[in-house]
Amino acid sequence: MPKQVDHALRRRQLVEASWDVIAAEGIEGVTLRKVAQAADCTTGRIAHYFSGREELVRSALRAAHKDAARRMMRIARSDTQAQDRLRRVAFEGLPLDAARLREWKVWLVFWASATSNAVLAEENVRRYADWQGLLESLLAEIGTDADTPAQIERQALELASLIDGLGIRTTLAPTPANRRLARDAVNRWIANR
Amino acid sequence: MPKQVDHALRRRQLVEASWDVIAAEGIEGVTLRKVAQAADCTTGRIAHYFSGREELVRSALRAAHKDAARRMMRIARSDTQAQDRLRRVAFEGLPLDAARLREWKVWLVFWASATSNAVLAEENVRRYADWQGLLESLLAEIGTDADTPAQIERQALELASLIDGLGIRTTLAPTPANRRLARDAVNRWIANR
Repeated sequence: MPKQVDHALRRRQLVEASWDVIAAEGIEGVTLRKVAQAADCTTGRIAHYFSGREELVRSALRAAHKDAARRMMRIARSDTQAQDRLRRVAFEGLPLDAARLREWKVWLVFWASATSNAVLAEENVRRYADWQGLLESLLAEIGTDADTPAQIERQALELASLIDGLGIRTTLAPTPANRRLARDAVNRWIANR
Repeated sequence: MPKQVDHALRRRQLVEASWDVIAAEGIEGVTLRKVAQAADCTTGRIAHYFSGREELVRSALRAAHKDAARRMMRIARSDTQAQDRLRRVAFEGLPLDAARLREWKVWLVFWASATSNAVLAEENVRRYADWQGLLESLLAEIGTDADTPAQIERQALELASLIDGLGIRTTLAPTPANRRLARDAVNRWIANR
């Protein structure tokens, strides 16, 4: 019987190996050889799934956004109070553990690449719209009927921006104190909304 | 008479040319040849001021932070009401015109590089401490005696984080609408502080 190969899983392993290399060495450090080493495979296998370095990097950058969006959607749909879900969605967007720290490093590389790449910049606009839409729907659930859509939109922009700023700071100095400050700032924002 | 050469000016021109290349092509696009082209000089002249590509890039990244800090300090010391100075310092940290947009693109590249470079990460921590200190002193001037230092510190962290988050969004989609949203969010934050 021929060996069964789970192609989605293999692709995913290569994406995760790329995250490791990007997080450790930045975009300039990414070579197919290093990703192959990190994935414990041959560069030939990478060539089977990606047309080259550029497609691999682009796929890895995109996947870091999609992964977070998927986790946030799952939280948003879970069965707890809206305020609790909002808090957990916001925390999911902060580098509060090793996995999210790696993801944040990849996001910083994504943004830097997007400054000179219109396709990535366009993707970022879409991701922000999705994320902000998610925050808006949770804020609307928490809010009163007196809140206008414009107010909800403004609040979502502020919360999303606050999270991004806290995330940068915590990613570049990932100390327990900074993680606590970031969590506290989000909790205060939600309490005072 | 020998030709007088303003070395500080020449160095500065090379730094600015590097900003142009970094903003247009990202960190991967930076070569001595391209920077020389952008500065309208030979690569030999670059070699006179910088030991190589790495030092040039590092100097350019650092200079983008120092430049903004200098402008903000100047505003903070000017002779208007503290609330007005706080607003103008905050706006100075947003990509509201072409010069600040270029600066923001360089910052995004700086952060991405800092994720895998301890020296740049360390510099970022120092810059953040300086910037936050500046915001704290302005917030303390505006505030009442009832504000505790811890409250002022929290407010400065929140405002700095909000500005960074708005800055990312506006840099990657530098539309007039996004610039307006960013300004409005800062004004609202200051008004509701």
